[in-house]
Amino acid sequence: MKDNENTLRRLKSIEGHVRGIERMIDEDTYCIDVIRQIQAVQAALDKVSTIILDNHLNSCLITAVRGDDPEDRERVLKEISEVFAASAKI
Amino acid sequence: MKDNENTLRRLKSIEGHVRGIERMIDEDTYCIDVIRQIQAVQAALDKVSTIILDNHLNSCLITAVRGDDPEDRERVLKEISEVFAASAKI
Amino acid sequence: MKDNENTLRRLKSIEGHVRGIERMIDEDTYCIDVIRQIQAVQAALDKVSTIILDNHLNSCLITAVRGDDPEDRERVLKEISEVFAASAKI
Amino acid sequence: MKDNENTLRRLKSIEGHVRGIERMIDEDTYCIDVIRQIQAVQAALDKVSTIILDNHLNSCLITAVRGDDPEDRERVLKEISEVFAASAKI
Repeated sequence: MKDNENTLRRLKSIEGHVRGIERMIDEDTYCIDVIRQIQAVQAALDKVSTIILDNHLNSCLITAVRGDDPEDRERVLKEISEVFAASAKI
Repeated sequence: MKDNENTLRRLKSIEGHVRGIERMIDEDTYCIDVIRQIQAVQAALDKVSTIILDNHLNSCLITAVRGDDPEDRERVLKEISEVFAASAKI
Repeated sequence: MKDNENTLRRLKSIEGHVRGIERMIDEDTYCIDVIRQIQAVQAALDKVSTIILDNHLNSCLITAVRGDDPEDRERVLKEISEVFAASAKI
Repeated sequence: MKDNENTLRRLKSIEGHVRGIERMIDEDTYCIDVIRQIQAVQAALDKVSTIILDNHLNSCLITAVRGDDPEDRERVLKEISEVFAASAKI
């Protein structure tokens, strides 16, 4: 699926970025520059989360809200709420 | 409505908390103690946001997803996605 | 002191902003618009924290690091580290 | 250095965690479970940032604040302030 490919490409780039930060540690790079790169990785992960949530809202959520299973619907809505609450704490 | 009362009570408590921080500044309280109180207010605001989003998911979102207006549905889903993306940046 | 006045003015504006959000709840404003205003308040609080930390670094921290009391120095550095760790979790 | 080894070990574990998330995408794992793993990686990165900042405060910062170069001192304090402001926005 196209969305998965996009997400995967972003994650592979993030993985490479993390490896780059490991090298910075190995080479005793200035602390503040390392922290800035970590913050860049975190911003990139935020972007991936947002893309995945977006897909989720436009597929699973619609199915669950339109479906006949009230428990399934409640679960899906509760998960979104939890993920939002957790994102506020990171 | 009961949920509104809960939200309102929390916001009034947050307002009082902010006034308390103003007094701390007036009395030249130690900077770090002020920052900790600001962080407490932010955690309380996160909680209010989560409660409001929860209500929204269980009312407006359900109505929009089950409704006949595809534009309305797309708008509601997009808003949730945007609010999530913004929360990741705060 | 001038910095305190600036901080105080910002906090009073934040307090007014919170009161405005209470009115929004009273008037049953659309949930997403309320959440966006809460996020704006949080961004304004982040700004106040940053200003206060900045003052702290340029006063208390310098005094402690140059002073003769190793315990005082360790305490001040530890506090900055803690405040940074907490800010990452909000 | 011991701190570097600790940081490096954490980063390697984070890199492995990101690879695990790539596999989850490949295997079409449920969106919400993927987002939760991304949030776990971000919390782990916060921890690494805090450790690095801690080392920085206890080495470079002390040297700069005690040193004779006011520009160097201002730069180091400004960087800490900037890193704190940026962390509030992630």
